[in-house]
Amino acid sequence: MGTRAVSWLPWLILLFITASVSATPSKKIPRLGVLRGSSLSVLEGSSSLRTVSVNLSENFQTFFYPQTLDHFNYRPESYTTFQHRYMVNFNYWGGARSAAQIFVYLGEESDLDKDINSIGFLVDNGARFGALLVYIEHRYYGKSNPFGSMQKSLQNASRRGYFNSGQALADYAEVIINLKKNLSADSSPVIVVGGSYGGLLAAWFRLKYPHVALGALASSAPILYFDDITPQDGYYSLVTKDFRDFSESCYNTIKDSWAEIDKAAAEANGLLNLSKKFRTCKPLESASQLKDYLETMYSIAAQYDRPPMYPVTVVCNGIDGGLQGTDILDRIFSGIVASRGNKSCYDMGQSSFPSETEEGWNWQVCSELVIPIGRGSNDTMFPAAPFDFKEYADSCKYSYGVTPRPHWITSYYGGHNIKLILKRFGSNIIFSNGLRDPYSSGGVLEDISHSIIAVHTPRGSHCLDILPSTEDDPNWLVLQRNVEIEIIHGWLLKYYEDLLQSN
Amino acid sequence: MGTRAVSWLPWLILLFITASVSATPSKKIPRLGVLRGSSLSVLEGSSSLRTVSVNLSENFQTFFYPQTLDHFNYRPESYTTFQHRYMVNFNYWGGARSAAQIFVYLGEESDLDKDINSIGFLVDNGARFGALLVYIEHRYYGKSNPFGSMQKSLQNASRRGYFNSGQALADYAEVIINLKKNLSADSSPVIVVGGSYGGLLAAWFRLKYPHVALGALASSAPILYFDDITPQDGYYSLVTKDFRDFSESCYNTIKDSWAEIDKAAAEANGLLNLSKKFRTCKPLESASQLKDYLETMYSIAAQYDRPPMYPVTVVCNGIDGGLQGTDILDRIFSGIVASRGNKSCYDMGQSSFPSETEEGWNWQVCSELVIPIGRGSNDTMFPAAPFDFKEYADSCKYSYGVTPRPHWITSYYGGHNIKLILKRFGSNIIFSNGLRDPYSSGGVLEDISHSIIAVHTPRGSHCLDILPSTEDDPNWLVLQRNVEIEIIHGWLLKYYEDLLQSN
Repeated sequence: MGTRAVSWLPWLILLFITASVSATPSKKIPRLGVLRGSSLSVLEGSSSLRTVSVNLSENFQTFFYPQTLDHFNYRPESYTTFQHRYMVNFNYWGGARSAAQIFVYLGEESDLDKDINSIGFLVDNGARFGALLVYIEHRYYGKSNPFGSMQKSLQNASRRGYFNSGQALADYAEVIINLKKNLSADSSPVIVVGGSYGGLLAAWFRLKYPHVALGALASSAPILYFDDITPQDGYYSLVTKDFRDFSESCYNTIKDSWAEIDKAAAEANGLLNLSKKFRTCKPLESASQLKDYLETMYSIAAQYDRPPMYPVTVVCNGIDGGLQGTDILDRIFSGIVASRGNKSCYDMGQSSFPSETEEGWNWQVCSELVIPIGRGSNDTMFPAAPFDFKEYADSCKYSYGVTPRPHWITSYYGGHNIKLILKRFGSNIIFSNGLRDPYSSGGVLEDISHSIIAVHTPRGSHCLDILPSTEDDPNWLVLQRNVEIEIIHGWLLKYYEDLLQSN
Repeated sequence: MGTRAVSWLPWLILLFITASVSATPSKKIPRLGVLRGSSLSVLEGSSSLRTVSVNLSENFQTFFYPQTLDHFNYRPESYTTFQHRYMVNFNYWGGARSAAQIFVYLGEESDLDKDINSIGFLVDNGARFGALLVYIEHRYYGKSNPFGSMQKSLQNASRRGYFNSGQALADYAEVIINLKKNLSADSSPVIVVGGSYGGLLAAWFRLKYPHVALGALASSAPILYFDDITPQDGYYSLVTKDFRDFSESCYNTIKDSWAEIDKAAAEANGLLNLSKKFRTCKPLESASQLKDYLETMYSIAAQYDRPPMYPVTVVCNGIDGGLQGTDILDRIFSGIVASRGNKSCYDMGQSSFPSETEEGWNWQVCSELVIPIGRGSNDTMFPAAPFDFKEYADSCKYSYGVTPRPHWITSYYGGHNIKLILKRFGSNIIFSNGLRDPYSSGGVLEDISHSIIAVHTPRGSHCLDILPSTEDDPNWLVLQRNVEIEIIHGWLLKYYEDLLQSN
C-alpha cells in the first residue's frame, strides 16, 4: 500500500456537533488535501454523538469592545479597531467589593453563540464560586470579524495577516483589563477556561499574561503537538487504540478494509459499484473520497467517544454486528449505518461548503498552528501517510500565498522540555485530558509542579470536562470535575491570603 | 512660576558618553518639546563622566541572522527578512557537551559596536562561568535596520510600525534558539543581561520566553515607570535628592536659579546678556533653551553619578565654589564650567543633529514606551512641569501621525501589583539598581520571591553593575556584582540538578 498524505487534519474544536454540523458540511479545498476541513458532517444526525445543549444565552448580556487590529505594530492601519464581542452573566457574581472571582471562557475557532450554550463548566460552577461569567469570542469568528465576514477576511492577503493566536491573546487581555476597570474589580482574580485550541489559548494566556489571569483550566490542549515534540503518529495511534481496545475484530476489519476498497475500485466499474455499495449521494470520483470519509468517521468517533452512547462502541457494534460471512466492505458499511442511521444516501462531502469555522481554521493551520499529524512508522489501522512539511507548506502557499511558520509556536510559547522549563517557572495551570481523545497524545499528562497539574481520565475524550454536567454523567467524570474545582479553589485561597497581606 | 511641560525625557540608555556623544549632538525636534532628544551632548568632553571603554570587540565574531520583520502577522510583507546582527565570543565557552552556560546581552537603543566595548559584565565573568558570550543588537539600531538606515525607517509611517519591544523580544528568541541549534547546545542554559531599556527587555524576556532564558539580570530597569504605577515626580525627586544630599547650598542655588533666568531674560537685551554670561555658541532664542540645557545637565549628572568623579559632586563643587557674593547665575555658570571644562563657548543644542539613538528612542517613546515623567506636586528643585498625556500624545501625533498607546506596556508585560502577581509566578530575575539613579524610582527595590530578587546600592547609579570592572571600583560595587554572580550561580546549580534528573 503506498503512502498518502493525511487528508484530514483533525479539528481542534470541541464540538458541538449539533451546532456546527447541520449548517455546513465539509468541502475539499482545491489542492489542499492535507488541510481539508474536518468535517463533522460525517456524523450529521448521528444519535451516538448527542451533546447536551442548553439555552443559557438568555442570562448573558452582550457587549462589544473596540479592539485594536494589530497589537504588535504601530503602522497607521494597526490602529484600526473592530467590534469585539463578549458576553457576561452577572447572576452569580459576589461583586467587586469582595473581590469575587471572574471565570473567563476564551473562545476558540467558533461563533460565540455556539459556545455560550455548550460550555457548561462556567455556568455549572458560577453559583458555587460567586463568579462573574464572561465568554469572549475569538477574533475573526462570529460577530468579531474585523472585515465584515470570514470570507471577506480570507480573500485578502493583508486582512488575513492579523488572524493569529498572539493577537487573540492580546485581545483577551485588553477585554478583561477593560471589563475589570469598568467594574472597579481590580482585585478580582480571573480564571481562564478553554478547550482544545481554546485550551491552548488558556494555558498560553496564563503563561504570557499572569498579571491578567490567576490561573487556567486548559481542557484537551495538545500543547506538545507542535514542531518535533510529539511523534507524528500520536493522533492516529490513539484512534487505533480506541478501536482495538473495544474490539479486536472491529480493528482488524477496518485495518483490512483499505486494501479491499482499493481492490474494488480498481475493478471494472469499480467506483460505480463502490458508490452503490456505500449508498453515496453522488457517484464517487475516487477511492480516496470514500477512504477520507471513513478515516474522518473513525477519528471523530474516537475524539468524541463520549457517554452515554460512546461512538466507537456504536461504530464497532455496527461493523462487528454485520453478518458473519459477509465481506469486509459490507461490514464497514454496517458501521456507517450504525453510526449515522439508515439513510437514503450518504454524503461523502462531494458537494459541501466549508463552515466559517472550517475556513478560519484552515487559515490558522496554514499560517501559525502547524500541527504535524501523520502516520509515519505505521502501526495504526490506517494506510501510511507520513506528515510531509514540504507538501503541506506548498499547498498552503498555493492557497494563501504564504508558507506556514512551523517553529513559531514553540519559539513563542515553548513546549520543548516543558517539565524542565516550567518546573520552576509559572504556576496555576490545569491540563485536563481524556485519554481516549487522540489529541491527548500531545497533551501534558504528568504534573509539572505542585500547581501545574495534569488531570486525566482513562475513559474520557475531547473536552468532556467543560461540557455541561448532566445527571447521567459517569462517576469518573463527576470526579474529574470535582478535582479541577478543588484545585482552582486552592489557587483562590492562596490568592486571597496574598491579597490580604499585600493590603 | 508657571507650569511647563518637561522638555527632556531622560534617556533610557546606559551610556557610553565617550561613544555616543562625540558623534551626534542633540537636536530640537520641531514642536516636540516633551520628546526632545536628551542629550548627552551637554556633557561632551566632560572629564567627570569618564566611562571605561575597552577594546573587546576583537574577541568577537560577527554574525547575521535572517530575521522576520513581523513575528505577529502573516501578511506577505510580514515575511520580509532583514540582516540581524549579533556577536559571539567563543573564548571561554565550556562547550555544548557539558551544557555550558550562555550569557546573552540584549541590546538596547544603541549600535552594538558601542555596547560591545562598554558592557563588562559578560566578559568579566566569562572565564569564571565557562560561558559563551553573545551580544545581540536591537532591531532598527546599528547594522540591524530592516530598511537601510534609521532615517529611512522613520520617515515612512509603515516602516516605523515594526519598531517596538514585542518584536525585538521575538527577534532575540529566534536568534538564541537558532544559535543554540547551530551549536547543538540545546541543554545550555541562557542568562540574559540588559541595562536600562535593555534591562526592561531582559526582565520581560525572562517572563515571556522562560523556555529560552533561564534567568535575567535586569540592571536599572524602571519596570514600574509605566501607566500610573509610579508617581510622575519619581525621577526628578531623586535628581533633587542627589543634589540636596550632597550640598544644601548647591540645591538652593539651583532651585532659585530658574526665576533668576526668567528675570534676566525679561530685561532689555536679556537673552543677549544671558548668552554672554553663559558663553553660548549661538545667541539664545529663549530662556527655555538655557533652562533645558541645565535641566539636562543636572539630570544626567544624577543618573550617571559614577565613581571615580561623581558628576553631582563635580557640578556642585563648581556651583558652591563660585565666589561667595557672586550672583546665582554666576554660580550656575561655574557649575557648567566645572562639569564640562573651560570652553570657548557652550553649545546649548541650537545647532545639533539627533543621533541614531535619539531618533530611534524618540519614536519608541512616542509609540509604545510611554514613561510618564513629570513634576506635578512639585517639591523638586526644578520648575513645575506636570506630565500632560494629551499634550504628549498631540506632539507624537504631529511628528509621527499616530498616538502613543499609554496602557500597552502594562497590558502586555504587567507591572501593577507586581509583588502580588509575581509572588507565585515566574522566577530567576535580578532587578539591580543604584539608588542615586533617578530611574530607580521606577525600579523593583524589594524582593518579590526567593528567586525574583532586588539588589541595590545606596551610592550606585544607572547601570553601574554591568559596566566593566576596574581596580578603582569601590567596595560596595564589587560586592554588588559578587552578589549578582552568586545568585546566578545558584540558578545554574538548580538547573543542572533538574537537567540531570530529567535525563
